[in-house]
Amino acid sequence: MLIVQKYGGTSMGDCDRISNVARKVLQRKAQGHSLVVVVSAMSGETDRLINFTQHFTPLPNTREVDMVLSSGERVTAALLAIALESMGIKAISLSGRGAGIITDEFHTKARIEYIDTTKIFHLLNQDYVVVVAGFQGISQHGEVTTLGRGGSDLSAVAIAGALNASVCEIYSDVDGIYTTDPRIVKNAKKLEKISYDEMLELASMGAKVLLNRSVELAKKLNVKLISASSFSQSEGTLITKEEDIMEKPIVSGVALDKNQARVSLADVQDRPGIAADIFGLLADNNINVDMIVQTIGRDGKTDIDFTIPKTEVALTQQVLEKFKDDFGSIEYDNDIAKVSIVGVGMKSHSGVASTAFKALAEDNINIMMISTSEIKISMIIDAEFAETAVRKIHSVYRLEE
Amino acid sequence: MLIVQKYGGTSMGDCDRISNVARKVLQRKAQGHSLVVVVSAMSGETDRLINFTQHFTPLPNTREVDMVLSSGERVTAALLAIALESMGIKAISLSGRGAGIITDEFHTKARIEYIDTTKIFHLLNQDYVVVVAGFQGISQHGEVTTLGRGGSDLSAVAIAGALNASVCEIYSDVDGIYTTDPRIVKNAKKLEKISYDEMLELASMGAKVLLNRSVELAKKLNVKLISASSFSQSEGTLITKEEDIMEKPIVSGVALDKNQARVSLADVQDRPGIAADIFGLLADNNINVDMIVQTIGRDGKTDIDFTIPKTEVALTQQVLEKFKDDFGSIEYDNDIAKVSIVGVGMKSHSGVASTAFKALAEDNINIMMISTSEIKISMIIDAEFAETAVRKIHSVYRLEE
Repeated sequence: MLIVQKYGGTSMGDCDRISNVARKVLQRKAQGHSLVVVVSAMSGETDRLINFTQHFTPLPNTREVDMVLSSGERVTAALLAIALESMGIKAISLSGRGAGIITDEFHTKARIEYIDTTKIFHLLNQDYVVVVAGFQGISQHGEVTTLGRGGSDLSAVAIAGALNASVCEIYSDVDGIYTTDPRIVKNAKKLEKISYDEMLELASMGAKVLLNRSVELAKKLNVKLISASSFSQSEGTLITKEEDIMEKPIVSGVALDKNQARVSLADVQDRPGIAADIFGLLADNNINVDMIVQTIGRDGKTDIDFTIPKTEVALTQQVLEKFKDDFGSIEYDNDIAKVSIVGVGMKSHSGVASTAFKALAEDNINIMMISTSEIKISMIIDAEFAETAVRKIHSVYRLEE
Repeated sequence: MLIVQKYGGTSMGDCDRISNVARKVLQRKAQGHSLVVVVSAMSGETDRLINFTQHFTPLPNTREVDMVLSSGERVTAALLAIALESMGIKAISLSGRGAGIITDEFHTKARIEYIDTTKIFHLLNQDYVVVVAGFQGISQHGEVTTLGRGGSDLSAVAIAGALNASVCEIYSDVDGIYTTDPRIVKNAKKLEKISYDEMLELASMGAKVLLNRSVELAKKLNVKLISASSFSQSEGTLITKEEDIMEKPIVSGVALDKNQARVSLADVQDRPGIAADIFGLLADNNINVDMIVQTIGRDGKTDIDFTIPKTEVALTQQVLEKFKDDFGSIEYDNDIAKVSIVGVGMKSHSGVASTAFKALAEDNINIMMISTSEIKISMIIDAEFAETAVRKIHSVYRLEE
């Protein structure tokens, strides 16, 4: 099998941890697989380098920033190759350029355009373990670019796609995707498998594990992902397409998001286009509106509730100033939480939502807003009850079993 | 004028120092010059990276080592470009690859083969200050290489030669070349000018300032060097060809080398080829023999004295074991010092050596070995008297004036 592995910053945190990674690579290699290993910079290194670049000006030239930032992964890639060689494994490191990763020209947030796999295949054919510096590529003009946050995962997924690898294993300090945050629910269970779409919906829970950008690319390229820990031997979670998951659970997981604020507009003039105007201007200001609930208008008035990131409250207040004559009152609430229930099985099962509503009612938890999609039910509740609600829902769907 | 500047690791030691360098560049730029600036990694960074590479094995793959080591200068080059831009100067950084520095394939000790100046000239024509990562290049196969110790100086000299620059300014934490080590002679004087050959002979004194490899390349390419401090505004020392120095001093400087050991072979069989055999085998073992003195043989026997680096004493003992039947006794003396007097004026002046011999005799300092070249007189004396001898000689030639 051809396997792409990716090790994150914590896994590559120092020389001893790099030796540990080398042993994990050795294990897979000993099983007879061909291996491409994508690495991040040592944890903390990218922040250290960003601080350097911002010492001189808050907005340094992004071309130069990329020259600085790309160095972290070059170092860890070469060190891992050295560590592997010291264990008797034929290994070679490649920079983004060396690995043929061609991106667009948007420095610090470049997108991969294609991968020229000639060199990687050539080296794999010579039985090398190919270690690739993640997070980076070059533009068509040969300038070094970086891919932004979570860039090394993207590198790994894109390489796995280009090589048509059997699987892309993403190693970090967590050992997979859980039914919910184990810090909240002690008996949260690690999922064996989950679909791309469920993973995307669970993002707020899994943000630290896998960014949506990588999952989306994996879905697009049909790359099987495994999320596992570099510090344990446990199996991890397979993220794959829905068709590959035989037994589709009704509910796969419960996610909690405490970074949202609720905005309530009361007595909005119910004229055509008012919602379009409001949300259009918010979008123009790059304010990411998540849930929107509008009640049916009475007496020519309506109520509109929506959620935004807490960090955008001040800007939202400023934007909405323009519409102040269009509604009666406005209320901002920072003390809310969004609890989401995710599962592909919902599509073919009824009564999933009502189970949740009933469970929360039993505990006297008031639901302020509800929104549903094919595979997700999201509810806004008082932040005070967030953890209680997650535990209750985890329990009523028997996710610990 | 087209000027190449080079700033060492101490000058680039942190972000504040990089800002200081940017101000020095700005100063020159404001004078209307075109500038290429070659930089080293932050002081300590290369050692930090070397330690990483040696964590896994004492002899890491040198290709991978170069990938690691080359990152330090990429970072400082980009940071200096950012610092310059923040001051309103058009600046751009180039890696060794970007600067077109093509080397042979001997990783960690590559030699520059040629420089493709197309890109640098193109950028200079657009009025950019071009900041180049020193110490590195790429092989014909596109692999990153590094140039070994003092490599950034070499990069600067080679670029100055290829661009036919008016001067190559080498900035470090010392402000020029002195008549002798100012720590030994308080009133040692900074030289305004010195010839390449004198500089090469003074190397043991100036080792920290300029490595012979760079001076030799400068001489070969006819690049005028200036050694100056990045921390002061003082003028520095011009190192140039002898013809450019109008008033040739008889003695330019006094150098002290305490890293040699003396080997004395007594009653050596005076058969033809014995010296060739001994020194041939030492050379085969990469033992760098410096001075050799052989006294005229009597009774078919002769005495041979020579000096070697102190670090090679053990190996020399081992090598000479093979010849033990060819001489009567052997003595090793670690407590010696080599004092050298250097000056291009010696060529046309007599009595220079005898002045030195007389001066040391006055202070009862015994001279164990003497060797002379056209522009240098070297004497081996007891290490105990090294500093006294340097002060005395500095004084009798009135070098403080």
